[in-house]
Amino acid sequence: MKNTLPWRPALALAASGLPAAAQTPAAVPGYTYGRKSLAKAPYTLADLASLKKTLLFTEDDERALRQSKAILADQTDAVLDVWYGFVASIPELVYYFGDAKTGKPDGAYLEAVRKRFAVWILDTAEAKYDQAWLDYQYEIGLRHNRLKKNKTDRANSVPQINFRYIPALTIPITTTLKPFLAKKGASTSDVEKMHAAWVKAVLLQSILWSQPYIRDGEF
Amino acid sequence: MKNTLPWRPALALAASGLPAAAQTPAAVPGYTYGRKSLAKAPYTLADLASLKKTLLFTEDDERALRQSKAILADQTDAVLDVWYGFVASIPELVYYFGDAKTGKPDGAYLEAVRKRFAVWILDTAEAKYDQAWLDYQYEIGLRHNRLKKNKTDRANSVPQINFRYIPALTIPITTTLKPFLAKKGASTSDVEKMHAAWVKAVLLQSILWSQPYIRDGEF
Repeated sequence: MKNTLPWRPALALAASGLPAAAQTPAAVPGYTYGRKSLAKAPYTLADLASLKKTLLFTEDDERALRQSKAILADQTDAVLDVWYGFVASIPELVYYFGDAKTGKPDGAYLEAVRKRFAVWILDTAEAKYDQAWLDYQYEIGLRHNRLKKNKTDRANSVPQINFRYIPALTIPITTTLKPFLAKKGASTSDVEKMHAAWVKAVLLQSILWSQPYIRDGEF
Repeated sequence: MKNTLPWRPALALAASGLPAAAQTPAAVPGYTYGRKSLAKAPYTLADLASLKKTLLFTEDDERALRQSKAILADQTDAVLDVWYGFVASIPELVYYFGDAKTGKPDGAYLEAVRKRFAVWILDTAEAKYDQAWLDYQYEIGLRHNRLKKNKTDRANSVPQINFRYIPALTIPITTTLKPFLAKKGASTSDVEKMHAAWVKAVLLQSILWSQPYIRDGEF
């Protein structure tokens, strides 16, 4: 896994589909936000409120996230090109999209995840923190964990994404997002506020996504 | 736990001891960084290198952290006043310093932790990522988890700090640190770099500290 170049064709393939923004979320396979079939999250809205307080996450952050939505709406594909490029540059990360037997990255799997990732950007910017949102965070966590990874896309990939990378990805995701937040004429101060809100929002989600990895009673 | 005021006296008491900077680290009870008695961390220096890559953590960040050390050296008590004030303002957090039976915050426990916290600020700024550092991160994680909480200080407090708050505290710790980084004349650009490096460094540590909470084979 030392040479990252062999991974690149499959990652490029994943970028060659329909622009995600051209699809309505409901048409994205495996996107089940709001579905009644989802399990209820094992954490409550009160737990969420306590976490937001700890994260210094306020209504100002919600406003900043919503400001970012219009800015990002037609840039999700460009953002994903950067994020997939970043993953492609780190063998330890592209590994999680690899075939469990051959190790070769799975183009179809990468593409399926990418479409949901585009919708996720706008959902995060929407900042609507209700029970449906909470239940979908739990679902996303399960899909990273061995409990449910690969099932949504019927992929033959490795059985889990290790916990350690989930909170860690907060940094590259929000660092590489910042230039896109600045591309539509927002003031420097507003870009800083949107970036700070995104860091909190992604870290918050990564904590909720980690729940399936945590020993019973310790979350 | 709705009224936070009753907690404040014990937290104020915790600030009334010797200034932490006046103590040498070796004299701080329970500070065991570098001791041969420590267990070997269950993660390796290679794991650490992969995590740093994922966190976009570079030598520039190490330099920025070291630049912050001289800036913070005589401000650790002032920083801790802010951090303890923040904890005091959130009942869900001060709970973890409370007596397991009465719920009353334990002044002696708060004070003992505070002394190590002061040393931790300068250790984080030192950015020396070797095996001894890794082993001490594991020890710190154990001391948050039910495996070892309270033992170092023989406290009668609640049995664990729940996982969810450990990565979350990255935000208040680094957000409230930023004004202190700016107090000694560093350029705005250098303050931004030091702050960004601190966010990465604290998130990195919070991930390592989380290891004891993670199900077998999923870290």
